[in-house]
Amino acid sequence: MAPNPHSEVPLRPEPIEAKIIDGKKISEEIKIELREQIKEWMQQENVRAPQLTCILVGEDSASQVYVKNKMKAANDVGIKSETINLPKTISEDELIQIIERLNDDNSVDGILVQLPLPDHIDDKKICNIVSCEKDVDGFNSTNLGRLSQDLNTMVPCTPLGVQELLKKYDIETFGKTAVVVGRSAHVGKPIQSLLQSDGRHEISGMDCTTIMCHRFTPPEKLKKFCREADIIIVAVGKPNLIREDMIKPGACVIDVGITRIYDEETKKSKLVGDVDFENVKKVAGLITPVPGGVGPMTVCMLMKNTFTAAKRLAKLRKEKLIK
Amino acid sequence: MAPNPHSEVPLRPEPIEAKIIDGKKISEEIKIELREQIKEWMQQENVRAPQLTCILVGEDSASQVYVKNKMKAANDVGIKSETINLPKTISEDELIQIIERLNDDNSVDGILVQLPLPDHIDDKKICNIVSCEKDVDGFNSTNLGRLSQDLNTMVPCTPLGVQELLKKYDIETFGKTAVVVGRSAHVGKPIQSLLQSDGRHEISGMDCTTIMCHRFTPPEKLKKFCREADIIIVAVGKPNLIREDMIKPGACVIDVGITRIYDEETKKSKLVGDVDFENVKKVAGLITPVPGGVGPMTVCMLMKNTFTAAKRLAKLRKEKLIK
Repeated sequence: MAPNPHSEVPLRPEPIEAKIIDGKKISEEIKIELREQIKEWMQQENVRAPQLTCILVGEDSASQVYVKNKMKAANDVGIKSETINLPKTISEDELIQIIERLNDDNSVDGILVQLPLPDHIDDKKICNIVSCEKDVDGFNSTNLGRLSQDLNTMVPCTPLGVQELLKKYDIETFGKTAVVVGRSAHVGKPIQSLLQSDGRHEISGMDCTTIMCHRFTPPEKLKKFCREADIIIVAVGKPNLIREDMIKPGACVIDVGITRIYDEETKKSKLVGDVDFENVKKVAGLITPVPGGVGPMTVCMLMKNTFTAAKRLAKLRKEKLIK
Repeated sequence: MAPNPHSEVPLRPEPIEAKIIDGKKISEEIKIELREQIKEWMQQENVRAPQLTCILVGEDSASQVYVKNKMKAANDVGIKSETINLPKTISEDELIQIIERLNDDNSVDGILVQLPLPDHIDDKKICNIVSCEKDVDGFNSTNLGRLSQDLNTMVPCTPLGVQELLKKYDIETFGKTAVVVGRSAHVGKPIQSLLQSDGRHEISGMDCTTIMCHRFTPPEKLKKFCREADIIIVAVGKPNLIREDMIKPGACVIDVGITRIYDEETKKSKLVGDVDFENVKKVAGLITPVPGGVGPMTVCMLMKNTFTAAKRLAKLRKEKLIK
């Protein structure tokens, strides 16, 4: 049908922009739900509030802010929390002893060691001292192994937050193609595990075909694979790595990257992700902003993990399987 | 230059066939090396021979053959071995007690529980009772987690055998694209971990871009991704899944599948892989046969893992870190 030049209907539709995935809103909703669930659980089971203990070594200001945010979120949902501040001169052995004491402490449900640790302390060793049951960060090798086996486990918070966003926005994953960019042990690889997990196994499987790209993926291959993807998840820390010509129209783009840059326009610093948001949103079907996308979900999932840990431990204590 | 019709040089070259990756030969070579290394180590360190203990529950005839082959290979390389035969009526608790006794037994270096176990026993639970140090099958969640973190660990035997074949045949992996078909916890996923491992980490990284396909990858996508791959590794158990039109000319094709089929021609049963070998070898650059490809490597890598376990345990005993 020929367009009517007198009609007010535009000759071609305006470019359709991607739906913005509002991680801030979702995380607030989940926190309200969690608050209710925790309250109800405490009443029904006649138990104390879940307890999260953070260990903060040294005085890194970014770490201090992160821990403060976690304490605030805990308070919001009705989780009791405390921070153990330790000097950056603490020895590895002393730190191990403190964690072992918390492992045995009946009043603690979740233990979080804020990373990074000082250079003389081995991060991975320390994360493995935290008992599997209290490992609310999910960084323990055994919990990561269970994740790779599609077994119920404590899933690291950022990957869990990404999965939650996909669920909340009804993104179909079964048989779809997902590209993960960035193969970190705590973000990229656990996300890959969740995406390729088998729906017939213990955890709720997403059954995607997954493609893992990283710094040694040739740029033309990265572009090609991204253009094949129904879902793209980027966790690298390289602003504008993902551009609009790399996106299949309608794809879902989740940006986990966070980099602080200087903004020439406002003369202030600002946070950006790995995706060229303004241009990619013209092609993608759904997209997370930075900030306000994945970020708020991470802290929220820490609360969810702490509640999960508290429930499991309370059950074990009730069954007298642990003291 | 116009071809000379009188020359004996053919107008077009004969189809170049893939180089056959000879797993049988490589595994024999490695066993000879291992035999020497074990002998030398025993003399230098003044220690007893490595000891592998297999647990065989029930009387499954295939399992009996597998265990017998493992015992034979152990004998070939100078590893002492024994098989503990248990009735299929054994309870899970009894089996756990036997494994715990072996964990504490100073004279045992490697413990292998032959799978599958009877239905009333939980395979994964049992594999996690075997101590990380003696877990020569690499099926323990902690060891699988360490693998996903690119940390030194006991790698499952078949994935380790695949990696060894790629190394022995000088297959370049850095920045290459590898497709893994089949997402099993003991084969497909550990192979994916090795292929995408970071060369800057603890284990020798292969730095491939990896694509994980599985039963829910649409056939046209499987074909497309395989055609992109420099390396294809198939571990599904579906004869002729991978055909010649799915292969990039010159690609390396590793076939982990094993299925017993009835051969109409010979009127006998025979073993086949997941790859249409006769046709794929006309396109691929390198290819493993079935049998004689990955199969012999698996048993050989079990011997390598047992020696690795024996060396580590001897070192720990020497340092009096364990009894």
